[in-house]
Amino acid sequence: AQASAFGLKDFSLIKTQAFIDGKWVDAKSGETISVTNPATLEELGTVPEMGLAETKAAIDAAAKALPEWSKTTAKHRHDILMKLFALMTEHHDDLGRLITLENGKTLTEGKGENAYSASFIEWFAEEAVRTYGEHIPSPFPNVRNITIKQPIGVVSILTPWNFPSAMIARKLGGALAAGCTAVIKPPPETPFSCLALVELARRAGVPDGVINAVTTLKNVGEVGKEMCESKIVKKVSFTGSTPVAKMLAGMSASTLKKVSIEAGGNAPFIVFDDANIDDAVAAAVICKFRATGQTCVCANRIYVHSSVYAEFASRLAEKMAAFKIGNGLDESTTHGPLIHARAMEKVQAHVDDAVALGAQVLVGGKSIPGTSFFHPTLLSDVPAAARVNSEETFGPLAALTKFETEEEVIRLANSTAVGLAGYFFSRDIGRVWRVAEKLEVGMVGCNTGLISQAVIPFGGIKESGLGREGGHGIEEYMNTKLIVFGGLT
Amino acid sequence: AQASAFGLKDFSLIKTQAFIDGKWVDAKSGETISVTNPATLEELGTVPEMGLAETKAAIDAAAKALPEWSKTTAKHRHDILMKLFALMTEHHDDLGRLITLENGKTLTEGKGENAYSASFIEWFAEEAVRTYGEHIPSPFPNVRNITIKQPIGVVSILTPWNFPSAMIARKLGGALAAGCTAVIKPPPETPFSCLALVELARRAGVPDGVINAVTTLKNVGEVGKEMCESKIVKKVSFTGSTPVAKMLAGMSASTLKKVSIEAGGNAPFIVFDDANIDDAVAAAVICKFRATGQTCVCANRIYVHSSVYAEFASRLAEKMAAFKIGNGLDESTTHGPLIHARAMEKVQAHVDDAVALGAQVLVGGKSIPGTSFFHPTLLSDVPAAARVNSEETFGPLAALTKFETEEEVIRLANSTAVGLAGYFFSRDIGRVWRVAEKLEVGMVGCNTGLISQAVIPFGGIKESGLGREGGHGIEEYMNTKLIVFGGLT
Amino acid sequence: AQASAFGLKDFSLIKTQAFIDGKWVDAKSGETISVTNPATLEELGTVPEMGLAETKAAIDAAAKALPEWSKTTAKHRHDILMKLFALMTEHHDDLGRLITLENGKTLTEGKGENAYSASFIEWFAEEAVRTYGEHIPSPFPNVRNITIKQPIGVVSILTPWNFPSAMIARKLGGALAAGCTAVIKPPPETPFSCLALVELARRAGVPDGVINAVTTLKNVGEVGKEMCESKIVKKVSFTGSTPVAKMLAGMSASTLKKVSIEAGGNAPFIVFDDANIDDAVAAAVICKFRATGQTCVCANRIYVHSSVYAEFASRLAEKMAAFKIGNGLDESTTHGPLIHARAMEKVQAHVDDAVALGAQVLVGGKSIPGTSFFHPTLLSDVPAAARVNSEETFGPLAALTKFETEEEVIRLANSTAVGLAGYFFSRDIGRVWRVAEKLEVGMVGCNTGLISQAVIPFGGIKESGLGREGGHGIEEYMNTKLIVFGGLT
Amino acid sequence: AQASAFGLKDFSLIKTQAFIDGKWVDAKSGETISVTNPATLEELGTVPEMGLAETKAAIDAAAKALPEWSKTTAKHRHDILMKLFALMTEHHDDLGRLITLENGKTLTEGKGENAYSASFIEWFAEEAVRTYGEHIPSPFPNVRNITIKQPIGVVSILTPWNFPSAMIARKLGGALAAGCTAVIKPPPETPFSCLALVELARRAGVPDGVINAVTTLKNVGEVGKEMCESKIVKKVSFTGSTPVAKMLAGMSASTLKKVSIEAGGNAPFIVFDDANIDDAVAAAVICKFRATGQTCVCANRIYVHSSVYAEFASRLAEKMAAFKIGNGLDESTTHGPLIHARAMEKVQAHVDDAVALGAQVLVGGKSIPGTSFFHPTLLSDVPAAARVNSEETFGPLAALTKFETEEEVIRLANSTAVGLAGYFFSRDIGRVWRVAEKLEVGMVGCNTGLISQAVIPFGGIKESGLGREGGHGIEEYMNTKLIVFGGLT
Repeated sequence: AQASAFGLKDFSLIKTQAFIDGKWVDAKSGETISVTNPATLEELGTVPEMGLAETKAAIDAAAKALPEWSKTTAKHRHDILMKLFALMTEHHDDLGRLITLENGKTLTEGKGENAYSASFIEWFAEEAVRTYGEHIPSPFPNVRNITIKQPIGVVSILTPWNFPSAMIARKLGGALAAGCTAVIKPPPETPFSCLALVELARRAGVPDGVINAVTTLKNVGEVGKEMCESKIVKKVSFTGSTPVAKMLAGMSASTLKKVSIEAGGNAPFIVFDDANIDDAVAAAVICKFRATGQTCVCANRIYVHSSVYAEFASRLAEKMAAFKIGNGLDESTTHGPLIHARAMEKVQAHVDDAVALGAQVLVGGKSIPGTSFFHPTLLSDVPAAARVNSEETFGPLAALTKFETEEEVIRLANSTAVGLAGYFFSRDIGRVWRVAEKLEVGMVGCNTGLISQAVIPFGGIKESGLGREGGHGIEEYMNTKLIVFGGLT
Repeated sequence: AQASAFGLKDFSLIKTQAFIDGKWVDAKSGETISVTNPATLEELGTVPEMGLAETKAAIDAAAKALPEWSKTTAKHRHDILMKLFALMTEHHDDLGRLITLENGKTLTEGKGENAYSASFIEWFAEEAVRTYGEHIPSPFPNVRNITIKQPIGVVSILTPWNFPSAMIARKLGGALAAGCTAVIKPPPETPFSCLALVELARRAGVPDGVINAVTTLKNVGEVGKEMCESKIVKKVSFTGSTPVAKMLAGMSASTLKKVSIEAGGNAPFIVFDDANIDDAVAAAVICKFRATGQTCVCANRIYVHSSVYAEFASRLAEKMAAFKIGNGLDESTTHGPLIHARAMEKVQAHVDDAVALGAQVLVGGKSIPGTSFFHPTLLSDVPAAARVNSEETFGPLAALTKFETEEEVIRLANSTAVGLAGYFFSRDIGRVWRVAEKLEVGMVGCNTGLISQAVIPFGGIKESGLGREGGHGIEEYMNTKLIVFGGLT
Repeated sequence: AQASAFGLKDFSLIKTQAFIDGKWVDAKSGETISVTNPATLEELGTVPEMGLAETKAAIDAAAKALPEWSKTTAKHRHDILMKLFALMTEHHDDLGRLITLENGKTLTEGKGENAYSASFIEWFAEEAVRTYGEHIPSPFPNVRNITIKQPIGVVSILTPWNFPSAMIARKLGGALAAGCTAVIKPPPETPFSCLALVELARRAGVPDGVINAVTTLKNVGEVGKEMCESKIVKKVSFTGSTPVAKMLAGMSASTLKKVSIEAGGNAPFIVFDDANIDDAVAAAVICKFRATGQTCVCANRIYVHSSVYAEFASRLAEKMAAFKIGNGLDESTTHGPLIHARAMEKVQAHVDDAVALGAQVLVGGKSIPGTSFFHPTLLSDVPAAARVNSEETFGPLAALTKFETEEEVIRLANSTAVGLAGYFFSRDIGRVWRVAEKLEVGMVGCNTGLISQAVIPFGGIKESGLGREGGHGIEEYMNTKLIVFGGLT
Repeated sequence: AQASAFGLKDFSLIKTQAFIDGKWVDAKSGETISVTNPATLEELGTVPEMGLAETKAAIDAAAKALPEWSKTTAKHRHDILMKLFALMTEHHDDLGRLITLENGKTLTEGKGENAYSASFIEWFAEEAVRTYGEHIPSPFPNVRNITIKQPIGVVSILTPWNFPSAMIARKLGGALAAGCTAVIKPPPETPFSCLALVELARRAGVPDGVINAVTTLKNVGEVGKEMCESKIVKKVSFTGSTPVAKMLAGMSASTLKKVSIEAGGNAPFIVFDDANIDDAVAAAVICKFRATGQTCVCANRIYVHSSVYAEFASRLAEKMAAFKIGNGLDESTTHGPLIHARAMEKVQAHVDDAVALGAQVLVGGKSIPGTSFFHPTLLSDVPAAARVNSEETFGPLAALTKFETEEEVIRLANSTAVGLAGYFFSRDIGRVWRVAEKLEVGMVGCNTGLISQAVIPFGGIKESGLGREGGHGIEEYMNTKLIVFGGLT
């Protein structure tokens, strides 16, 4: 990997090694993973193919660093995280570009992700100094109760490629702020953003061993197993697919580890007859096609009331006509490529399946052969039985379904095993409260397609996850310890 | 089972059937489980041996009752729980007696447990109406964020025999207050306290299907599996042993269920040289021998500083000389029987092992053959390698070990995979903070052997558990839902 | 006073003496105050005319009782308050009747007030055991910070006649729960509800001296001054008019007393063009005419959008045609009398003033001579300059004003020095958030005319008050004490 | 005033004008106030003598700026305050020097104050984005309650000379973070630190009119009155003497303004027989002599148990022998001058009074004539009747009194009308809890003489104040608004 090839201002942000105990290291085997730019299908560079031994070493390093780091004051960790925030802000352009290069999203989106990512570091720095315990009145006259919050210990962090930086920052920020040390397994598709973040944390003063990053692709089975089953690790935080989540949760059960999971969604997007159609169309564009449909909170099923169905469909089609797919570095590009071939196949399969069942293609419907670009697609009259209505597409496919009543659409929206995000558009205050309360999801967007903010509790219910990130998410990395004082008289 | 044989004022509190969808039912197979009074080894009565089919029926009933119950106001649930609290108080003598009959603990302890059990019902009634969500300032000008708390859904509750009533109340109180419905699997040794509680809940106005209780012994494998793997159930709350906890957590992973676990402990009890020895001895009596040593927060390892070791040992032996084992219904009894033969064998094994390794028997050391009574035992100079120092005895065995320095004893105390409770005795404010912070447990008793109160966060770290009960424990039964409002201008 | 004349089931709830240090006492002077039933203008009975000496004695008694009461556990106080709650529920009919007899409101309203009053006692019982302090992470490594909540001390409580029971319960509940002792000055118009409450508190186990009640009319100046200026008293809680509030606040400044004030309001009630008119009319009936318009959160100014003005006016007039004024004990009565002649005069003055300025009388407009009954009145086209738009009427006068734009009506609504409650009717979610945020009041009713609940923070901004009652209102009776621990190593 | 005379790196931090509506202005009258360096008694420079007209203009400017500033997002205000924090850190040396020049404290103390001052700006920036409201479960099925926090409006800030920067930052940080605008009246002795802070706030992007600073000396009566009585101002925050506090509170009552007061203390400092004497002596040096005894939390009365009295006295005297009074800019100086002649006279009067009543002078006891330097003084056997035991000395006078029992010293410590801080030294955990709970103060130092941190609730009880600053102190600048939603079905 030629660092200069990335076109960054600060070449030294490009790291092509894993990071263990404060040192940049290669795999013992010497093997590497090739990382590709999805827009060009060219190799960006390589990172080491780490395995079980290196993972154990990383966990050991984290364990070794824990006693000292966990005893630092919250203010000390706050100040280091604030320095990291400042560095992420200072290197905004480079970090945004790096995201675009390895993930494919547009530069605007890449920079947006860096800002979002940095916002978690700042937020958790501020949360660190607010990890209040309690003084709890006792029913016994001569007893005093207090609780204190203590770091949970060594944390395993496993994250996906669709937010190469932000998913790590959301976990790592909470973990470091709490006083934990961490081992990160970044996604093999997008490791460079992770490694750049680690490098900046090092520059900010995070001590050796506090953060470790282990890159892996083919050894992911043994690496993930060790991260979940190690007796040293006390917490696993994972963002990714529901099947993998279940597997990791099962492995973590062997030591009763605390587990946070942010798994797959299948977000309904509902447009009622009393919606502001302008708002609904604009939100659909963002909510469905952001990152070319590759976010876990993207709308997956679009339900539109019959009385506004035609209008909504035609206006969305009109907006989509202005989309321009291409390399995210190109300023005119509105939508980048998908991450890889498997992603392309799934979108095409969802389109073909729906069409076979009677759906009509209003816009797009196919990919550009030999590339990772799929034309943003709008399907009309998608039947309930279509796969897109029960599986997450994770691509630029907007599938419209007509509905008649509030009760019907609530039932449709809730007819899935997952429950991450849901969206609806209505102006009536009564319906707003009713629908917001009834949607079986962790997060509801009402008249908006954008819900992500560092301050909110991000996470799902049902099979979409366990725990919440952002907001009070530092709690996920802390134990509440009760201290009961007796013998006071 | 002859209800009158129990000697209760209100015979109708004795229920010998399981409870599903508001009806008292037998097993389809007609099979029953014999329940024995451990003090007399006589049969108290029988309960049905339910299986997979009945468990599914119970879960279905809970699911059917959920929509209406979950939509009641928190105040409505508060009022019903307050009625249940009043009924438990009204039937205090009967409920205490029932606990003594099936568990063996003394009547004082039995009534104490009923009061403790009722305190959870009252506490969670009051918590129901305080399940506040938040209004969260947004970084975006035209966005408003709020969060609300919603019941998590159908809950599986699995509890042990050592607190036949309180362990259920601590879970059920939180679940009902939150708006959840529940399926309870009580322990086969002590089902009657559970069923009496269910009966009182019914009288208090809990609707059909909201609480279901399934008794089982030999079918426990299939029943437990269904309670953890059912797609309908959204939460499992378990108190019991660590190995079972791991198994249930593993099964629950298959649907990413939220799991609360209160598993085994191995509590250190440390007496420093600056301790008040009176306090320490008195606390050891309570903390080690309460319920004849059969609580998860009982002291398991007693570390005494060399300078006060002899004094502590002789004074504890003196106190133990006044113990009187016997039927808990007998007023002069201070300590009741163990629960069953397996329990007897484990205590004897721990004694024999320690003695074989060089420990000295200061008091007791053996059982009364043909009974479930084990003489409260005090061992001196127990070596580190003894099983009692690494396994929970769950019986009336106090094992003393000498130590020299604060650092040494902290290391000893923390050298275990579990971490529920820990106790220490010291008067120095500096040591108090240091040791309280360093003990790797969820709950610390400082100069006291009693930590349990409805108001505190009960639970452990490491392999002792997940989540906290009591205190803010209603959170374990609720989802936080985010609602983001856009389109406001 | 003939207790039997009140027609209560439990005659002993009628107390005609003041209560100091656990004893029912007369005034030293022997003077009394005559209490009249406003529906019949007949004397109900008398209470003592206490003065400065008795007030000092009451304060001294409260001071003497403080050390012991303040040291009881929160759970102990919780249990006593729960007994008081149970007694208030048990005597529901009597207490409701008593309110009707001395205040004039209908029996439904009287009983409603008793339930509301009792709800504060229950609420604060439950709050007592939740007065959590904090453990605050320190920026210094060897420092530990905790805070605890302690009762503020002796509290002076001064309340008005329009809620003879609930205004006292809202303050007394918080004060007792916190561990404070209290001196109450009930209103001379309605002292019996206060004294009955005190009697029930005594029966519930509140110790001597913890609650004291001093009745006064002509000596109110010296009594109030002592209650505010005494060096012993640490807190004054007042509900009443803004001018008196300012006077008491000024007196309290002499000792830097903590002061809670719930003073006058002048609630706007806004009906937008997108309102549900059914809801708005129904709410206006409740919000304007509840207690015959004599509550501090009654609508005082009704602004209706021009497009729905005629409809709203005619439908409100229609509803008002069904009103029946009369003795509150009569089941057919919908609206009772005003409290006294001064109240009658003010309403008539507001009507006359508005009519003189051009308003039209749609319904009512005058009183029944020789009684305290004023015909519920509806005025149309009330000009901005009318007194009713700048002064609180505190009577059954609904004054309608037409408006055109959201901006205009917000300006009108906010053009007053006070800001307690405000109401508006609109279905649009955007307007709902906008208007709710812009109204300069402490409490907003959106599509409802009823906001009072024990769980909410009741109170105003601007010249309507200081502090909040209900909800977290126990805080008003507690000090936060910081404890910083050093020297830990 | 010659800016260069101050010796700052950035001369432009020296502002000699008041600041109104974004402009640096002189008094209309042209009059000025002379500001003196207390170490040299030379004039440092002048600031304008503003009066009523300028105060009204400042209030009007704050009112004009309010609508826009209060509508900014909390994150926007957070970011501006973070910039201010960065600027205060960048100009650390200059700002510390400025404090030393006008206040006299040593440069170490001056810089320490700047760091402390900046810590409030950072803290409240972070608090701004955490001003959570609540979603409150309603007892009514179709009602939803939420609360939001809104800025209280225009704030008046009045502060003393002993912390020229930090007292302003503690208030201004909270006010700005909350979305309020402010008028500051800095002390005439030390206006330059205030004006430098205002200048940096301007550079950080605080808009015109949001902060205004009005300097005054002889017109302080009319200025203070307007700041408290203006109908525009909604909140007064004052730090200073108790008599002035009472006066301002009285004036503020005329509009029911919300008032925060941090007034005088008279801190007891207790050394028990089980204290660590090293710690106690070291703490006494800091706690009594910090800022030459001129802080409101300085120990004022030192009670030492008879068994350790002699040792404590001699060791404190020994430490004091190493004190070096002098110009704070001189590195060897440990203690600077007093602020002015009045302060000198009070200390001398307290010394003379105690000696006249029988106290013995162990160290110091007099001033250096013609200067503002008073020799740090240690008095032994100070009788209870001495003025130093009932009045705040606010100077370098340590007055020792012997005691025998815990009960006696608690009584002595509490025998005062004020209650800000209190300190005690004891190692026993039982005594620690007992004494900490019994001291009638807002803040307790246990085995430490330093309690100040931005994170803690700073403030007193009794006549020492109203409200708390730091910690959750942003609440003092916000109103809680309740929004009740009805009509939802």
